[in-house]
Amino acid sequence: MMKKTLMTVCLILMAAFLYAQEETLNIVVLGAHPDDCEGDAGGLALLYAKLGHHVKFVSLTNGDAGHYSKGGGALAKIRMAEAQEAGKRLGVKEYVVMDNHDGELMPTLENRLKVIREIRKWNADVVIGPRPNDYHPDHRYTAILMQDAAFMVVVPNIAPDVAALKKNPVFLYAADRFQKPNPFEADVAIDIDEVFEQKIYGMAAHASQYFDWLPWLAGTLDQIPEDEPGRLAYLARRRTFSPGPSTRESLIRWYGEKGKTVKHAEGFEICEYGKQPGEKEILRLFPMLSPEEN
Amino acid sequence: MMKKTLMTVCLILMAAFLYAQEETLNIVVLGAHPDDCEGDAGGLALLYAKLGHHVKFVSLTNGDAGHYSKGGGALAKIRMAEAQEAGKRLGVKEYVVMDNHDGELMPTLENRLKVIREIRKWNADVVIGPRPNDYHPDHRYTAILMQDAAFMVVVPNIAPDVAALKKNPVFLYAADRFQKPNPFEADVAIDIDEVFEQKIYGMAAHASQYFDWLPWLAGTLDQIPEDEPGRLAYLARRRTFSPGPSTRESLIRWYGEKGKTVKHAEGFEICEYGKQPGEKEILRLFPMLSPEEN
Amino acid sequence: MMKKTLMTVCLILMAAFLYAQEETLNIVVLGAHPDDCEGDAGGLALLYAKLGHHVKFVSLTNGDAGHYSKGGGALAKIRMAEAQEAGKRLGVKEYVVMDNHDGELMPTLENRLKVIREIRKWNADVVIGPRPNDYHPDHRYTAILMQDAAFMVVVPNIAPDVAALKKNPVFLYAADRFQKPNPFEADVAIDIDEVFEQKIYGMAAHASQYFDWLPWLAGTLDQIPEDEPGRLAYLARRRTFSPGPSTRESLIRWYGEKGKTVKHAEGFEICEYGKQPGEKEILRLFPMLSPEEN
Amino acid sequence: MMKKTLMTVCLILMAAFLYAQEETLNIVVLGAHPDDCEGDAGGLALLYAKLGHHVKFVSLTNGDAGHYSKGGGALAKIRMAEAQEAGKRLGVKEYVVMDNHDGELMPTLENRLKVIREIRKWNADVVIGPRPNDYHPDHRYTAILMQDAAFMVVVPNIAPDVAALKKNPVFLYAADRFQKPNPFEADVAIDIDEVFEQKIYGMAAHASQYFDWLPWLAGTLDQIPEDEPGRLAYLARRRTFSPGPSTRESLIRWYGEKGKTVKHAEGFEICEYGKQPGEKEILRLFPMLSPEEN
Amino acid sequence: MMKKTLMTVCLILMAAFLYAQEETLNIVVLGAHPDDCEGDAGGLALLYAKLGHHVKFVSLTNGDAGHYSKGGGALAKIRMAEAQEAGKRLGVKEYVVMDNHDGELMPTLENRLKVIREIRKWNADVVIGPRPNDYHPDHRYTAILMQDAAFMVVVPNIAPDVAALKKNPVFLYAADRFQKPNPFEADVAIDIDEVFEQKIYGMAAHASQYFDWLPWLAGTLDQIPEDEPGRLAYLARRRTFSPGPSTRESLIRWYGEKGKTVKHAEGFEICEYGKQPGEKEILRLFPMLSPEEN
Amino acid sequence: MMKKTLMTVCLILMAAFLYAQEETLNIVVLGAHPDDCEGDAGGLALLYAKLGHHVKFVSLTNGDAGHYSKGGGALAKIRMAEAQEAGKRLGVKEYVVMDNHDGELMPTLENRLKVIREIRKWNADVVIGPRPNDYHPDHRYTAILMQDAAFMVVVPNIAPDVAALKKNPVFLYAADRFQKPNPFEADVAIDIDEVFEQKIYGMAAHASQYFDWLPWLAGTLDQIPEDEPGRLAYLARRRTFSPGPSTRESLIRWYGEKGKTVKHAEGFEICEYGKQPGEKEILRLFPMLSPEEN
Repeated sequence: MMKKTLMTVCLILMAAFLYAQEETLNIVVLGAHPDDCEGDAGGLALLYAKLGHHVKFVSLTNGDAGHYSKGGGALAKIRMAEAQEAGKRLGVKEYVVMDNHDGELMPTLENRLKVIREIRKWNADVVIGPRPNDYHPDHRYTAILMQDAAFMVVVPNIAPDVAALKKNPVFLYAADRFQKPNPFEADVAIDIDEVFEQKIYGMAAHASQYFDWLPWLAGTLDQIPEDEPGRLAYLARRRTFSPGPSTRESLIRWYGEKGKTVKHAEGFEICEYGKQPGEKEILRLFPMLSPEEN
Repeated sequence: MMKKTLMTVCLILMAAFLYAQEETLNIVVLGAHPDDCEGDAGGLALLYAKLGHHVKFVSLTNGDAGHYSKGGGALAKIRMAEAQEAGKRLGVKEYVVMDNHDGELMPTLENRLKVIREIRKWNADVVIGPRPNDYHPDHRYTAILMQDAAFMVVVPNIAPDVAALKKNPVFLYAADRFQKPNPFEADVAIDIDEVFEQKIYGMAAHASQYFDWLPWLAGTLDQIPEDEPGRLAYLARRRTFSPGPSTRESLIRWYGEKGKTVKHAEGFEICEYGKQPGEKEILRLFPMLSPEEN
Repeated sequence: MMKKTLMTVCLILMAAFLYAQEETLNIVVLGAHPDDCEGDAGGLALLYAKLGHHVKFVSLTNGDAGHYSKGGGALAKIRMAEAQEAGKRLGVKEYVVMDNHDGELMPTLENRLKVIREIRKWNADVVIGPRPNDYHPDHRYTAILMQDAAFMVVVPNIAPDVAALKKNPVFLYAADRFQKPNPFEADVAIDIDEVFEQKIYGMAAHASQYFDWLPWLAGTLDQIPEDEPGRLAYLARRRTFSPGPSTRESLIRWYGEKGKTVKHAEGFEICEYGKQPGEKEILRLFPMLSPEEN
Repeated sequence: MMKKTLMTVCLILMAAFLYAQEETLNIVVLGAHPDDCEGDAGGLALLYAKLGHHVKFVSLTNGDAGHYSKGGGALAKIRMAEAQEAGKRLGVKEYVVMDNHDGELMPTLENRLKVIREIRKWNADVVIGPRPNDYHPDHRYTAILMQDAAFMVVVPNIAPDVAALKKNPVFLYAADRFQKPNPFEADVAIDIDEVFEQKIYGMAAHASQYFDWLPWLAGTLDQIPEDEPGRLAYLARRRTFSPGPSTRESLIRWYGEKGKTVKHAEGFEICEYGKQPGEKEILRLFPMLSPEEN
Repeated sequence: MMKKTLMTVCLILMAAFLYAQEETLNIVVLGAHPDDCEGDAGGLALLYAKLGHHVKFVSLTNGDAGHYSKGGGALAKIRMAEAQEAGKRLGVKEYVVMDNHDGELMPTLENRLKVIREIRKWNADVVIGPRPNDYHPDHRYTAILMQDAAFMVVVPNIAPDVAALKKNPVFLYAADRFQKPNPFEADVAIDIDEVFEQKIYGMAAHASQYFDWLPWLAGTLDQIPEDEPGRLAYLARRRTFSPGPSTRESLIRWYGEKGKTVKHAEGFEICEYGKQPGEKEILRLFPMLSPEEN
Repeated sequence: MMKKTLMTVCLILMAAFLYAQEETLNIVVLGAHPDDCEGDAGGLALLYAKLGHHVKFVSLTNGDAGHYSKGGGALAKIRMAEAQEAGKRLGVKEYVVMDNHDGELMPTLENRLKVIREIRKWNADVVIGPRPNDYHPDHRYTAILMQDAAFMVVVPNIAPDVAALKKNPVFLYAADRFQKPNPFEADVAIDIDEVFEQKIYGMAAHASQYFDWLPWLAGTLDQIPEDEPGRLAYLARRRTFSPGPSTRESLIRWYGEKGKTVKHAEGFEICEYGKQPGEKEILRLFPMLSPEEN
């Protein structure tokens, strides 16, 4: 597995070199648990990395409750290591795991300030996180914390220990299936077909999640293959990231005809509390949408 | 009144015996104050009880602010006693009143864990509570706490002192009239005509509320009858539980033609954060919807 | 500037005297920062004042983060002074600035009780504040605190040190541009053409905001005129309060044909958690909507 | 009783007039509950009032738990009224009762700021409160809050809505019987023989405490006289304020031989966190210690 | 081991039967972690149990941080099971383990109320816990919570869901070696020679602590015997409970000459915030001090 | 000033090189505000630095309230810059300023974990901070946080994102003048005569404190010299660090006769909650006490 990781890293570095541009984009993806950023924006991260841009993943909890037989700091250490490996596989330059208890994330001022600092330190152009409607309270409060960090990142009197951003980044929500009070609407949709397998490979680094905890929850622990190829195939079957209606519509908008046949995609909705980009700005921030220009 | 209560209890026990099934359902109703569960799901509770299922009411506050001339622990004791009596009248097997101040409920982690424990200890199949849109902050935060407990009830590392559930229950919102950001939509509607009087009788156990505090708030304290029959009639006039449009539609869906003429009903909307039941599962969880099978 | 202020005050006092009615209305406007009430309801406040009604502005934070080179208590003092001046210019009888840190407002019970007390002490008929959807977390939490104060203002056991209101006031949200989860809908719209310049003059008292901080944020600090007439003209250009679609529709509803040509307006949406007024009640509470009766 | 109160007030006003000095001293006494200031420093307050100085009592809770059959806001209102009456009887110019729940006082930043503001608004020269060693948690946390307010009262950036004091006042602890970790040591001791009956009369205004709650706790409710003279005599027997060893020693230091025969006294220990006064300063701040100079 | 436990239980039950008295004493021991009560008062608990009195152990945290390779809920479950076993071995009738994170105990109002309820539900005559001076923050805050519960247990308006005690219990601190701000002083000392081995056996139930975690911390994990006799001997060597000077002095006071030769003892210091017992009351509450009377 | 700083740095580096030892000691000094570590242990830090050991200063607040005309983030930035300069002058390798508001530090779990991480990241052998008795609440809570971090630094399940220490460091309190509940007792005393001027020079980097805020508080702002030599002389006169009785006694213990004539010294008291060092260990941890060995 080490070998595969290394090769990936090399390819990404080469790509980054070839496509080096004048302006490097800085992206922060916020997730509640180590493995949430991967599912929400792992394909996007790989595409950014290939173009030489800088992606940081931030998990707001340390994941110390996500297992049936392990827990606490002991589990957190396993998950932090998995996150580092996943980050490497996805071309992510930094993976921050905050030391908040899993299942206990609250939208406190303390946590808001931590999110503000991570966004500032990365000099973010784009910030991505979950919507405040989701089945897991940690996901919802991650969304609230992202909302609460928006705009405040430009106020110098807040968290004066880290220089304020000059401009409010564009904040986006990752796709979800929840309908109330309003469903997800994809303002941007990214074709991840070319990196789908690599995304799955990145996600698979979270072995304690995808091959232990989630199958245990689903009562399917006995169906998990032991070998890596089997596991990757299993995961690719379970997590297809096939576009929902809104994401499909957005794919067609951004990719034209080709958008109709994309198999795997990631959709994003622009949060109203950050910068509101026009089409040109969206194309600048998501350069994979206009490959000819690269 | 004692006699009437005893008779009710007997009838319910008999019914429970007659309709005894292989599988007993376990239901938890969450309310902000002692008397909220009664209004939201008192009819449903009676119908469950008749079929031998187990209903627990949980009030998240002790109601110690709901009066014009009494208050604090002194009032809480009155209301806890009223709750026990109401529970008996409604066939409820357990009535938990949490010792949180009325008017001060906050969506803290502490309170979330208390809700998780009550759901787990009851081995709940169904959990019912208010929507997060409502005129009273305690109602809204009860809803938030219910949402925050959903899913977490199956995570063994959370509240390890009480065994985690094997499956996420179905969570439902009780009906309300609030429109924003989105109105209540009845996924399930229950005809309570046959138990309407008994529901009113159960609610009437909250004398400090229905005959003291709420009329005082409305400036109609002088219109409250002194005798029990008069009070029951008064309450039945004021609280008709006549179905709104969405609940009516759902009644027709579940009861067919008969649904058009139901006078008193309780509607429930499925919360997206619990198990998402299909029609068959709904019929299993709400056996009063298919009486022939009983 | 002192002279102009004095004249304004005199005119308002005269107007108040001439139009003195039997019933004085009491209005509370809640804002997150010193200058928020002004923008949201400064025109309305002037119109109320002219009719002899009593308006109180309440800022839930002291604004101590809203500057690029000043901060803390030192800045708060400047902003409190600006607020007092703005209040005078707008005919506001009292301007309360709560000592909460700017950028750190949280929907705590403590803050809720402070809001309850301000509403009670003013014996409010009408309370106005932001919606819970807005780009600034302090705005959102101000909205939550307003919601959480609604109804509780009539409960005598809550904040017993200040007499509870007899009736729940009408609570309204000020207009904003945010669309999700649902857009602002104007139930009431007020033509402020006749007081527009005075509103701008009132806002201009917040020099540290309109001529320092906000231009700095926008990168336009060098475009700010030095002299007062220039500054007022600048502000009037930037803050036109030209009605959006929903407010326009409401203007036409309340003003008839004239509503189509109103240039500057303030729209308000009735919050579902306070008293729900009918048309007659709205006309009573907003007497500027029926000038012939005054 | 009204008559007696009025006469007291008149006498105190006259005394205040006669002894009017160039410098008026401002004193704040902090207590956890309405009736704590009275017991700790009621005699001192009377002596200050006679000399024309200004005493404010501040109760950090509203006393809403201190009864066996009443509670909440309903009880708080009774106790706030009792406090106002007690204040009148003791010559206290203002009696502030904070709306914190009795039995739930915590040393929060919010409460600290409230204490800071009360001290500043009174422009206090002297602040008195309990020691952090005491049987009641509210007493202990009142002491912590007093300690946490000391010095901060002079920092302008803290609570900028109320002007900071120019000088840190002298803070003192009232006497208690607790030995660990260190016993009370009287740095100042005040002979209250001449006002002892008036102090008892002031305390007696707290009828719900001295004639209801505390006897109920002690199981002596049946021993409480019904009539006022009987109650005053009962209270004078139970609360003699006879000086303990440390207070006796201090009495002798400050009063000489006369100190040996004082029957009723109040002792105070200088807190190390405020201004540290020398003998001369103590005599200035406690002018009743040198009556010849008045 | 099961057999040994069963025999112990039988012996204790027999003893309890033989020595059954008219008045059963109820004792609550508070510890921060599962295993703290055992060390502090395990011998005393055994002696109470032999005399038929009722002892409850309460651990304020679930111990979920006390291991080098396990943690979280997974560890908490192990420790809760160990606590139940230890309780059986020591004749403890109930062992409550609160679900607070180990290493994160804070003196919150929530936790105070939980302690109050445990004391009330046991109708405690005696409550024992640590002093607020100790090397572990959880120990210190357990002490603070015990202090904060003292007296409040008799106030009916506090935690009205559990009936208030009629009398404040006697609260005592268990012995420790800390000197500042003041050293432990034994007001009561108990000769535990006759139950020393049984105490060690009870403590040994906490295998994850005494044979895993604490040796790991000390770097002596390789010195731990594998077999039970070896482990018991090891523990008895490491934890001798040989009386310190203050406890020795107290032993002599209570046991006379015999006190000079006691090998194993437990000392207790009376907390000033509970009932202050005289000698006769101490002898009543600690009947093992006067065996002839039993 | 730059030149002087550079020279100091060079000298220290040279010294560090010359005295390079096998074992480098790691020291953390905790202060409430930027400038507290300097006063408490600035001389010690210089002596450590000369011997090649690694000292980190940590300020638990950002100092944003410590001025009469500036505040908030604007002030915090000034003070953070002053701290960096002071650190350089004192040979401190890292100076961490936590972003907590000055005057608002609370002993929260969040802050405790931050302190734990700083101690762990430095792999500290020695940790120094204030005693919990001090005139400023921030100082007291810094002390509580230090106490609460002691021992927890070795528990791997706590703050698992930073590797736990293998051994509990020695924790020490810096000297103060407060007497209750017990006075400071110097277990270690350090002769700082040789670095006194350099310590003063380091302190002087906090210009906003020593030449602005503190003189303003004392009413002596007009006595502050404008030029650097004058300021250094002024500061050296005001802050002599002449040893108090307990520190003098300790100086004699550690330095023998020479200890009697030391002019400037820093005393430290061993906290009971960390490792308890014997004399040999103290000499190892404070190598400046046995210069012949270096």
